[in-house]
Amino acid sequence: LRNPACTQALSAATDWVGYDLYLDLASDVKQAQTEYRFPLGGEEARVRYAIELAKQGKNVALVCSGDAGIYAMAALVYEIIDLEPNRIMVEVVPGISAFQAAAAKAGAMIGHDFCCISLSDLLTPWAVIEKRLHAAAEGDFVIAFYNPRSLKRRDQLERAFAILNNHRPPDTPVIIASNLGRPTEAVKIVKFSDFNPDDVDMLTLVMVGSSQSRAMQRGDGKTYAYTPRGYAKKREMQ
Amino acid sequence: LRNPACTQALSAATDWVGYDLYLDLASDVKQAQTEYRFPLGGEEARVRYAIELAKQGKNVALVCSGDAGIYAMAALVYEIIDLEPNRIMVEVVPGISAFQAAAAKAGAMIGHDFCCISLSDLLTPWAVIEKRLHAAAEGDFVIAFYNPRSLKRRDQLERAFAILNNHRPPDTPVIIASNLGRPTEAVKIVKFSDFNPDDVDMLTLVMVGSSQSRAMQRGDGKTYAYTPRGYAKKREMQ
Repeated sequence: LRNPACTQALSAATDWVGYDLYLDLASDVKQAQTEYRFPLGGEEARVRYAIELAKQGKNVALVCSGDAGIYAMAALVYEIIDLEPNRIMVEVVPGISAFQAAAAKAGAMIGHDFCCISLSDLLTPWAVIEKRLHAAAEGDFVIAFYNPRSLKRRDQLERAFAILNNHRPPDTPVIIASNLGRPTEAVKIVKFSDFNPDDVDMLTLVMVGSSQSRAMQRGDGKTYAYTPRGYAKKREMQ
Repeated sequence: LRNPACTQALSAATDWVGYDLYLDLASDVKQAQTEYRFPLGGEEARVRYAIELAKQGKNVALVCSGDAGIYAMAALVYEIIDLEPNRIMVEVVPGISAFQAAAAKAGAMIGHDFCCISLSDLLTPWAVIEKRLHAAAEGDFVIAFYNPRSLKRRDQLERAFAILNNHRPPDTPVIIASNLGRPTEAVKIVKFSDFNPDDVDMLTLVMVGSSQSRAMQRGDGKTYAYTPRGYAKKREMQ
C-alpha cells in the first residue's frame, strides 16, 4: 500500500530517520541512505534529530507507518518548527492509515461520516477524550479508535464502550484489526454487545459502526461490515 | 498517490467500470481491458453493472478516486450484495482520500482527532447532518467537509459555519483545497472568521481546525496549518 510518491521520497533521501521497525519496512527501497534508528517512544527526540540533519542540508526522510499526517510525526515537525522557526523545506507524503486498511479488509464501514479518536491519555487529558467520545456517540459517527490501550492503563476501551452503550444498538458491528499488512494480520467483526476489551492489545485498531452500520455473512464464511450512504432511502423515494 | 495494490488490481482486471474521468486517470495502466464509462451520478446503476459483470465471471475493477471506502462505491457494493446476496468475491483497495491529500499539502492539520462529514443532503436528511455538525463542534474535532455544495443547494457551508461559530476561535485555520492532485490544484488557508462560502465549489474540500489547530507563515511565504498532539504539555510536565 506504499504509494509511489512515498517510495520516491525514500529513494531521493540521503538520510532515513525513524522507529526501528518502520525502517525495516522500507528496506526494499534502501540504497546508500544513512539510517538513524530510534526505539519506540521518544518521538520529540526523533523529530528534532531529523530537523537537525535537514538544517545541515541533508535530504531527510522521517519514516512513519500509515499516514504521516495521522497520529504520526508530521504534526510534531510543524509544532517544533513553529516553536523554533527555520528554513528547511517540509513535504508531507500521505499514506494509508490503519482505519482505512481495517475498513477495506472488513468491507466498507467508513462509507459514511466517521471520526478517529486516540484513546491515549499520555498527551491528551482524559477529560478531553471523554468529551470527544460523548460527541462521537451522540453524532452517530462511525468511530475508529487508535491507541486503544497503553502499558500503564487498560480501562480506556471499557470507558469508551460504556459511553457508546446508550447510543448504539447491541448488534452494531465492531471491527477488531491487528497487525494490518503483516503476515500475522487478523481482522474480525463482533457485535457491540459481544465486544471484549481483553481481545485488544496496543497494536490493535478498533472501529465501532454508527447506528446505520450493518454486518453480513457471505459465502466465504466471513463476516463483512458496511455503512450505507442512503441509497435505500433514494430507492424508496423513486 | 495511487498505491501498487491498486495498480495491480487495475492491471489484473478484464473490465473497468467507472465514472468517465476516473477511467481517464487510470489510462497509464490500461492494456486490453474493456471499459464501461458512466456519467457522474447514477452510482447505483454503475455498481449494479459492475456486479453483473462479476457474476458473469469477469474480473472487474470498479474505479473510484480517493479511497474507494470513503464516500465512494465500496459501501454501495456491499449494500447491494446485502439486498441481493451473490457469490462474487469483493476486494476493497484503500487509497488516499481528499482530506489526507489536502492536510498533507497544507501541513499537518489531521495530527489529532478528526472527523469527516459529507454536507450532501441528497442521501442523508439535513437533520442528521446538523446533529453531526453540532457533535463535531462540541467534540472539538478537526472537521473535513466533503460535498460542501450541490447544484441545488448552496447554503450548507453557511449553516455549518454558523454552528461552529460558537466553538472555534476566529483565527482557527480553515483549509480550502480544490482539484487535488491535478495541474489546477489550489490549496489555501484562511482564518475561520475570514472564510467565505462563495470561494468554494462542488469539487472543493474544506477542513476546519479544532480549537488547538494553528497556522504559521514560513520562509517560502506560504501558510501552513497543524494540530499539535500535546507534546508541549509533555514538555511542561518534564
